[in-house]
Amino acid sequence: MSDVYIAGIGMTPAGEHWEKSLRELAFGALEAAAQDTERVLGGRAPAEALFAANALAGQLSGQAHLGVLIADFAGLRGIEAATIEAAGASGGAALRQAYIAVASGQIETALVVGVEKITDTIGARVNGAAATAGDSDFESAQGVTPAALAGLVMQRYLHTYGVSHDVFANFAVNAHANARANANAMFRNAVTREAYVRAGAVADPISMLDVSPECDGAAAVVLTSRPTSVRVAASAQATDTLALHDRPDLLGFDAAQLASGRAYKMAGIGPNDIDVFELFDAYSIFAALSLEAAGFAERGKGWQLAVDEQIGLDRRIPIQTFGGLKARGNPIGATGLYQIAELTLQLRGEAGANQVPGARVGMAQCIGGIGSNAVSHILVAA
Amino acid sequence: MSDVYIAGIGMTPAGEHWEKSLRELAFGALEAAAQDTERVLGGRAPAEALFAANALAGQLSGQAHLGVLIADFAGLRGIEAATIEAAGASGGAALRQAYIAVASGQIETALVVGVEKITDTIGARVNGAAATAGDSDFESAQGVTPAALAGLVMQRYLHTYGVSHDVFANFAVNAHANARANANAMFRNAVTREAYVRAGAVADPISMLDVSPECDGAAAVVLTSRPTSVRVAASAQATDTLALHDRPDLLGFDAAQLASGRAYKMAGIGPNDIDVFELFDAYSIFAALSLEAAGFAERGKGWQLAVDEQIGLDRRIPIQTFGGLKARGNPIGATGLYQIAELTLQLRGEAGANQVPGARVGMAQCIGGIGSNAVSHILVAA
Repeated sequence: MSDVYIAGIGMTPAGEHWEKSLRELAFGALEAAAQDTERVLGGRAPAEALFAANALAGQLSGQAHLGVLIADFAGLRGIEAATIEAAGASGGAALRQAYIAVASGQIETALVVGVEKITDTIGARVNGAAATAGDSDFESAQGVTPAALAGLVMQRYLHTYGVSHDVFANFAVNAHANARANANAMFRNAVTREAYVRAGAVADPISMLDVSPECDGAAAVVLTSRPTSVRVAASAQATDTLALHDRPDLLGFDAAQLASGRAYKMAGIGPNDIDVFELFDAYSIFAALSLEAAGFAERGKGWQLAVDEQIGLDRRIPIQTFGGLKARGNPIGATGLYQIAELTLQLRGEAGANQVPGARVGMAQCIGGIGSNAVSHILVAA
Repeated sequence: MSDVYIAGIGMTPAGEHWEKSLRELAFGALEAAAQDTERVLGGRAPAEALFAANALAGQLSGQAHLGVLIADFAGLRGIEAATIEAAGASGGAALRQAYIAVASGQIETALVVGVEKITDTIGARVNGAAATAGDSDFESAQGVTPAALAGLVMQRYLHTYGVSHDVFANFAVNAHANARANANAMFRNAVTREAYVRAGAVADPISMLDVSPECDGAAAVVLTSRPTSVRVAASAQATDTLALHDRPDLLGFDAAQLASGRAYKMAGIGPNDIDVFELFDAYSIFAALSLEAAGFAERGKGWQLAVDEQIGLDRRIPIQTFGGLKARGNPIGATGLYQIAELTLQLRGEAGANQVPGARVGMAQCIGGIGSNAVSHILVAA
């Protein structure tokens, strides 16, 4: 097996892109990643394969077959290309396939690009499309949205652990604070604890400031077997039940725990070695559960890291360092690749005002459905 | 790199399955493949990963995230799982990802399952969904269906090479003849040359007997690094333009030619070494173009193999040996795995009345869109 390195990264702003098509968004990210790669490797690196990550284009844009769409538009005709889908975990899952291909030695350079375009579709259709990440026959067909399912989990968390809703406030405060200096973030406004407490309900107890904005965006990562300053030290994926009602325990993010565990084992490290953790805060309850599943807090104590202000850039475990899903935005199939791009900036020391001091080891984790699928990658500064 | 072998295969009948859900169809194929694997390996082989192939479930069944859906329903909770989409080439693309994973040594046993369920949706919606394999902005949005695009290609073929429509008759005759003994085939009725000539138009010059039936079905393949009687000697993929109007040459299936060429090179063989070729006869014009692209006929002469009856089970290049897409049926995302399962039966000598005498080397090729994406696999009897 070859070692696998990050040769380049590229992002478009996350937000509303009514004037750009799917292919244009994806190309913007690929183009930025190509320029970054040229800078890092000191020359061009022709890729042999393109892995596209996307969740909803077939449903919302009448466009499947994104691997070909993007390869063709990017002038890469002939290259091999496929689309990888794992709901919210699509970006991580596509990176994992590319990682395996490069590690295998069969491919020297692989492009991974995640893209999502949803804001020019009416909200009800977006909700319906997003719900296809759940169990169509037994959940979505009954009208349950992802936010409603996440609300059930949060309700159970508050009940079981006897905490109040406001202990989650700092996840939103931290995310928005870190987004302020991020030109790619959708929401760069500050959020206060008071605003969090006042925010209107989405799916009780989940409020407007517990939930990440689903938006448009694209991010790209170039993987290579040629040594660079950032190495992919581990790649792992795991699943849980698709439907929430099949879980013996609503409060264990088992897939996230399995995927983190496999990644730690592969990298030969543990949570104490992680300097920065880009977690999947689609909802603030996900942030707490992810911190617990990845070993940064005991079960039922994930919120404590937020309350104790241990999640900031220079604290115990920095998360949402460029705004996270909450403030940078959540372009679903692309999100996992924004995480990797941001983590790469951290480990290169190129994060500017968002820099985590001395970051050498980082983990990114993305989640599909209500914890049904998790992909973990550990990156290290080489 | 490890050698990669086929440990087991499983198929459900292709056709209309109104009484079975997506997960039940997929499970049926996986269960059959598990039993086959147990017989072949003399014991169970726990898999570490599941690759799901599907093209249309998000659009037609409101169900994405099929990797988790299937893994969960099959009792494989915790396993890693993702969905691979490449339109009609999804099955081959998923097999390719599994091949890379096993060849890399990172995974010993991988499950690949393709599933499609479309016949309980009204035809207009199926047409719209199938059209997402093309260019949404510049083709599908104008109302062009895949059959209409294939019709343009066939019209051009007839014009450029000066042949009449009836030279394609034997592709349908051969497919239906071979489907008669295949219990998994959708159409087991014989088709005559006379019936072909009389068949009503679908998208001129494509008639009812030029086009394969889009249907429900599931097929599964288990890959392993443990030696068995069938080895995967090559795996390759390539792309072409997404939109037909971007092709400098409508009559070259460039992606198919590239993918076959890469596969031949990897296996160290050429077309003369292939005993059986499961090609992607979504339309009879695809059969002719695929035979040309894979080197079995000169350009403009693919139809000649049909006219000369060189495509039968005991002839020069047997194709559609269990009925092909035309008569076995075309459950889009699953089709590439039916091809692999059927080829495996041929190389094991287990094809019964459909056996190609002395088959030792076989190629399967599936196509996404109008030749926009092609995946080729070469299997050899070990």
